[in-house]
Formats: sequence, C-alpha cells, structure tokens
Amino acid sequence: MTSQHIPGYGLGHPDTAASPLNEDDLDLLKTTLLISEGDLQALRMAGEVLDDQVENVLDVWYGFVGSHPHLLRYFHGANRQPDAAYLGAVRARFGQWIRDTCAARYDQAWLDYQEEIGLRHTRARKNRTDGIQAEMPLIHLRYLLAFVVPLTLTVRPFLSRKGHDAEAVDRMAQAWFKAITLTAVLWTRPYVPAENF
Amino acid sequence: MTSQHIPGYGLGHPDTAASPLNEDDLDLLKTTLLISEGDLQALRMAGEVLDDQVENVLDVWYGFVGSHPHLLRYFHGANRQPDAAYLGAVRARFGQWIRDTCAARYDQAWLDYQEEIGLRHTRARKNRTDGIQAEMPLIHLRYLLAFVVPLTLTVRPFLSRKGHDAEAVDRMAQAWFKAITLTAVLWTRPYVPAENF
Repeated sequence: MTSQHIPGYGLGHPDTAASPLNEDDLDLLKTTLLISEGDLQALRMAGEVLDDQVENVLDVWYGFVGSHPHLLRYFHGANRQPDAAYLGAVRARFGQWIRDTCAARYDQAWLDYQEEIGLRHTRARKNRTDGIQAEMPLIHLRYLLAFVVPLTLTVRPFLSRKGHDAEAVDRMAQAWFKAITLTAVLWTRPYVPAENF
Repeated sequence: MTSQHIPGYGLGHPDTAASPLNEDDLDLLKTTLLISEGDLQALRMAGEVLDDQVENVLDVWYGFVGSHPHLLRYFHGANRQPDAAYLGAVRARFGQWIRDTCAARYDQAWLDYQEEIGLRHTRARKNRTDGIQAEMPLIHLRYLLAFVVPLTLTVRPFLSRKGHDAEAVDRMAQAWFKAITLTAVLWTRPYVPAENF
C-alpha cells in the first residue's frame, strides 16, 4: 500500500495543519537531540532494514497496547469495546509513520504534518479523521510521551535481523531513538499553551 | 554535600507541591515505560557507579548547555548574560536529581517533588527558588523533553567505568533511559491543562 492510498494520511496534503515552528526552530531541536548527518544515514539504513518488517513491528506494538487496558481504551468505541475498524485505520498510518521517520524528511511539509498528528491526539481532532464515536476524547499526553520507551526498545531486535554488525545496529537504534523523540516532542505542541512550548 | 544542605531541594519538604497523580497512576506509567523490578536493581547499581562521578557527568551536561546559546539563555539573568550563581544553584539540585533518579523511590513524596520540579520549569515557579531576575520566564517544554536524549546518551560512558561487563552496562543504561523519561513525563504535567495530561 503506497502512502497515497492510506485513509487519513496527510503529509503534504492541503488540509494538513500548519506548524507554528519553522525549519530554523527544527534545526535547534535537532541540535538539542544530537541528531547528526550520521544519524540521518543510519535512519535511512534502518528504513531499508525495517521495510519488509513493518507489519511485524506493528504486531509487537499492537500486542503491547492490546494487553494493557489503560492503553487499549484509547481505541474503544462508544460501547467501551475495542473498535476493530479504528484500530486498523490507525495501524496503516502507524506503519507509514515508521517509514516516514526513517526517511527523515525534515522540511516544512513534514513539520506541518507533525502538528497535524499532534492535533489528532487531542480533543481538537482525535476520532475525526476516521469518523469514530470513541470512548476517549484524547490520548493523554503522559502516555503519548511514555511511548517513546517501548517504541525505542522494541525496534532494536528488528534492526539486527538483516545481518548488520552490532555497531551498525547500535547506530540505527540510537538514530531511531532520537528521531522518534523528535516526533513525540513535536506532537506535544497542540497539548500546551503556545507560550509554553 | 547531603541533600538536606542543597538550597531549594524539596523532596519530602512541607512546602513542596502536591501531585495530582497517585501511586496507582504511577504504576500505570511505569508499566507503559516497561519499568521492571530488574530496572530498579539496575538503577541502584547505576547509583553506586555514578556516585563519585556525578560532578563529571554534570561537567558534560553543563558543557553541552554552555556551548549552545539557545540552551544557555535559560540561565541568563536580566542582563542577558549567564548568571553564575543561578547556574551553580541549579547544578547542586541537578546532581541530587541523578542520585534520586537512581534511588528510584517511587512513592507519593517522590511524585509530589516531580510536580514541584515541573512547576519550577514553568512561569509559575521558575526563578523563584533561587531569587533570580532572569531573561527567560520558563524553560520551553520542547527543550525539556528533548533533553532526555543527551541525558540518556551521555551517561552511558560513565556507567562503563567501574568494570561492569557490557550486559550490565546495557541494563543500567536502559534503566536510566526509562527512569529519566518517567521524570520528564511527570515534569510535563504543569505545562498542560489538567484534562490533557
């Protein structure tokens, strides 16, 4: 499935939100996150390594969410049961997020889409993209941020499955950690008063 | 210097803020962060390893902040120059935070102090503890969150300096990553409307 055929996918789409940050702001964040040219190369290598494993990675993440009621409830419909259509629609975009994260296209369109993804975790836009009547009006920020840890640690085994040596796997894993932290930081933006971000 | 003699240090003090979270909320966060009993043991081992290296760790972190104007400005006085007394006062508490993080005392008093530390990064309490007239009224949330990456990656070399094998160093480094992410998540609380956190 190419990204153009994923329902609700919005990188570069005209109806995607605008980020209040510009590419200079992004450069300062990248510096703070120690993101180097070497990390961008490692991310692209990770993208090749993960490309045919994306569904396996998602299986692990969905298994984690599905086994914890305090996480699964964010995917409940109004009947307080998991909504399979909603879980599936998010899953397709979640897989594309893995690919986009590894592509590390850090331009204004990418920044704008991070703002859009952030908004879709808040009351402003959660459930709208997929037309869901959901139990939860938002993803609480503490879990969105905490997810950096499982999403960092569970990817490492997949990075080691294509014959790269330990040093290369370390580089990919570290770059992945930095890159997903960058997205989590940017997704935090719509949760906070603008002056606090 | 024992923690009781650090100006402004407030774990267990009566004038420390109260957290809106309780220990059940904390357990759910710890689960989401994959924090296990093994991590608590690894954190305590890290505490022993780092104990006599805390000043060296702080030298690295202060070197990082000091070499980046967009970070150093948070330590400026009203004259837009770095305030040495402020930098020093924060440094003593920052060192104690390393020790407290490794002690992993996850009780209500610890939760309350995380709320206090969070508040001290916002307009509500930044600069008050040390009586500073500062250029910046708050630490912008995006940099507070981004700091998890340099504070994770720069500690690893120190964890390997006391003769532990690579597997033990990995366990300590991973537990440290989880534990500092937990504090960063909790410090985010005062930045956001209560219903969003």
